[in-house]
Order: sequence, then structure tokens, then C-alpha cells
Amino acid sequence: MPSNSPTARGIVFLVGAGPGDPGLITVRGRRLLEQADAVVYDALSDPRLLAHCPDAEQIYVGKRAAAHSFTQEQINELLVKLGRERKRVVRLKGGDPFVFGRGGEECEALRNAGIPFEVVPGITSAIAAPCYAGIPVTHRDFNSSFTLITGHEKEEEYRAAESKARGSAAGSSDVNWSAIAKLPCIAFYMGVKSLPRICAKLIENGMDPTTPAASIQWGTTPRQRTVVSTVPDLPQKVSEAGLSPPVMTIIGKVVSLRDTMNWFESKPLFG
Amino acid sequence: MPSNSPTARGIVFLVGAGPGDPGLITVRGRRLLEQADAVVYDALSDPRLLAHCPDAEQIYVGKRAAAHSFTQEQINELLVKLGRERKRVVRLKGGDPFVFGRGGEECEALRNAGIPFEVVPGITSAIAAPCYAGIPVTHRDFNSSFTLITGHEKEEEYRAAESKARGSAAGSSDVNWSAIAKLPCIAFYMGVKSLPRICAKLIENGMDPTTPAASIQWGTTPRQRTVVSTVPDLPQKVSEAGLSPPVMTIIGKVVSLRDTMNWFESKPLFG
Repeated sequence: MPSNSPTARGIVFLVGAGPGDPGLITVRGRRLLEQADAVVYDALSDPRLLAHCPDAEQIYVGKRAAAHSFTQEQINELLVKLGRERKRVVRLKGGDPFVFGRGGEECEALRNAGIPFEVVPGITSAIAAPCYAGIPVTHRDFNSSFTLITGHEKEEEYRAAESKARGSAAGSSDVNWSAIAKLPCIAFYMGVKSLPRICAKLIENGMDPTTPAASIQWGTTPRQRTVVSTVPDLPQKVSEAGLSPPVMTIIGKVVSLRDTMNWFESKPLFG
Repeated sequence: MPSNSPTARGIVFLVGAGPGDPGLITVRGRRLLEQADAVVYDALSDPRLLAHCPDAEQIYVGKRAAAHSFTQEQINELLVKLGRERKRVVRLKGGDPFVFGRGGEECEALRNAGIPFEVVPGITSAIAAPCYAGIPVTHRDFNSSFTLITGHEKEEEYRAAESKARGSAAGSSDVNWSAIAKLPCIAFYMGVKSLPRICAKLIENGMDPTTPAASIQWGTTPRQRTVVSTVPDLPQKVSEAGLSPPVMTIIGKVVSLRDTMNWFESKPLFG
């Protein structure tokens, strides 16, 4: 239940909504939703999560593919405004707030405005989508490291331009393809359009072309579909299968374990 | 409530218990605990999680530092045995079952025995411990990739020997230090004893010696303590501070964000 009166001091909870399956939000995250006065949420959150906060003010700030309804700066300002109104606010973000979620920027804005905040981690798709596709992201026989990469080309270009403006070292050059191609297991948060470029970069930089790879659409949801191939052939296969975003791609020998561990897609019923 | 009669067919749920804070288990994980006939758990799970399954058979199989009470093979056999008894079993594992958790091996054993299984992801310490230390593992200004590595030396030696026996490519050579040292953000699941060797390896392989680094003991719990330094100086500082395991170490420029984002350790009360 939301508090009837605003708290003495506003507070913003950045809550990870998890990867899609609404059962994968944390117990703490759900409790905070139930207690919220206002919930600021974006596109990837399962709408059923909002059933936990029927009496809260619900504000959608998700980014659409074509038009951004809210810029990041506007979201930051909204969170500060709600905090200043002494509300108990949940900022519900897909996956984990700090894994390519721009939660850090929201925390910086809140801190600069003197609004208290807390962060509740969420299950990230890079781990959960492969899990539901029967692919453990680590296995003692195959890898002792696992790397998450954001691969949106637009995002990269945007980052490069903005980082330059801010005098930061990040940007597209941040992805050291020569190093990445030597890693045993990589998950890409990416658009399907980036896939040909990314797979080509990995092979150019020395990755074994027989390395297995999988792309998973709508991981952990009833719409989940998985395409398995090798790195060079994956883009074509994904294109033929017509996977639609969100898509998670995982590259490494662990993909071969799907043959024996595919528990979710082989279930008779989702539930 | 556990089922009064065993299910028609046994089933094993591998459930991630999360990083320590008992509120960070998933809603689905908690529900499965409440419904379990038997719970097989290990050392890192918060004992309070077991309060969700008071009527279930509770079996501790955690590994102690000195003596292993159960080998992995014995755990696999136990899960198969309970599944064959047609029980509804929760295998509760610290963090995420598939992130250095050996969940893959348990799934393989269950599949080989014909026992159905499902996997419930958990929040991994590599993301949550830094989060509670005020360190987002990614930030648009600093990194577009994030790497998790297991760094136990003993584990590495063990892996090297066993992988050789199994004809696998993994083992200690799996960690490509030259590639790892070029990555912008790395989290190590490791013993404090491994820290001097790991930090030396990174510097030897070209990492900027001014790179900030943090070690976090008992992340997300009231016992959390964090030591911040640079990569070359971290081992000495951690030793002086007397951090005790479990310790998570995070290396990269994002560590500098703790100065403005340290929300948990600065809270007046844990809760």
C-alpha cells in the first residue's frame, strides 16, 4: 500500500525489474513497488509488475524505437521533482539498474539534488535469457570469465559523440575488439542490426569461426525463441528466423550445453 | 507449504539465493522455497531464507574452507536421489546458479538421470556487492563492457587438473591476462589470498596502475565493508583492513563513482 501521506523526506528506489518473467523481480523490489506513491517505469518492464502498485501514480518514460518520449535528462528531472514532493518513488528499470541501465546517471542527478536514494539490483538478461535458453553463462569445463557488452551501434555513436563533449575516455573505442575476441564467453545487449558487424569484428580479431553462438528473443517470456549457430553464420540465421527485439546474443562454448540443458523452451506449459 | 504427497514425478529447482541480503531472492525463488519438500543449500545462503520452508527437509551441503563436507559428485547424487523419491526439491545456491555456481554440472547430472529440472536465476554478487558499495558496474562515461572472473587459485589448479583429465580446453590457461588487462571493468570472485597475484598480473599485462579498485567483504549484508585503492596498492590495503571472505573485487574507473553514490554503507540503519 502506498503511504497515505508523503514521507517526511522523499526517497527514490531504483529497482531492477528483471529480464521479463515477472517472477524474477526480487522480493525487496516487489515490496517497494507495493509501498510506492509513484512508479516511473520504462518499456521492458512486464506490465503485470504494475499490478503490485495499483494505487500509485504510474508514469511511463520508456524509450520507443523511433521517438524518445523522454530524454534521460527529463527522466532525471522527473525523479528529482517527485523526490522533492516528498514522495516514495520507485524507478522501475528493466534488468538491473546498473547494467547498461543508466541508473548511475539517475543516482548522480538525485545526489546532486540532495534526494536520498537506494538501489535494488535486478536479474540481468545477459544471465537470465541464456539460462532460460538452457545455456549456463559459465561452466567449469569451458570458461572462468564471462563478459557483458552493450552493442547498440546508435548507442555507441551517441556515446562517442557525448563522451567527446564531456572529455571522457569512453565511446565506441571503448570496445577493444582484439581483447574481446579472446574471451571465452560474451553476452551482447544489442539490436539485430548490429549483429553482422559484431560477428565480423570478432572473426577479424581472431575468434575461432567454429565458436557456437545463440541469439535469444524475449528471453524468459512466453515469446522466447532461440537461434543457435556459429559466430560467422549467426546473423544470417537470425535474419531468416525473423527474431524481434529485445534480443540477447551469447557467444562461447557454453552454448553447446543447450543440447542437454534446454529446460524452458521444452516445457509443455509456461508457468 | 510443501506438498503433502510427493509429486507424481520429482522435480529439482535450482534457485539462486542472491548475494546475501535475503530480500534479494526472486519472488519465484521464494515461492518455490515455500512449496518445497526438500531444500539442499550451501554456505553462502542467508539462514533467514530457510524460514520460508520450515516444514521442508533441509540438507546442508556447503563447502567449508578446510574440509569439503560434500563433493560436487555427492551433491549431484543427492539431487538425483531426492528427485527419484518424487520430491519437489529446491537446490538453493548462493548468487546465481549459473555464474561460477556449478549449476551446469548439477543440471547435467539431473538430465542424465532423467529428473526434470528448472533454473531460477539469482542476483550475482559481482553486480550486487559493488551496487551496495555505491559502484555501478557500468556507466555510460566509463565502460560499455563488464567482465566477471573467478579467481580462486585453488579452484584454478583444480580446474586445470580436472579439465586435463576430461580432455577439456579450460583450466588456468583459460584466463587470458593480456586480454583481461585491457578491459574497462572487471569483477573478481576470489579469495583475499589471490589478490596480490591477480593485481600483479593485471599490471604486468599493461593495465594503467592508477586504475581504481575496490574490495567488498560480505556485500549486501550488515557486515559489508569496502576498501578502495588503486590496483597496485589494493592487496596491501585489503590486508591491513583485515577483510574476511566472501570478498568481491571490482576494478575499473567506475569505482570512482562511489564518492558520490555510496548509499548503503552511509545509511543510518540497515533494513
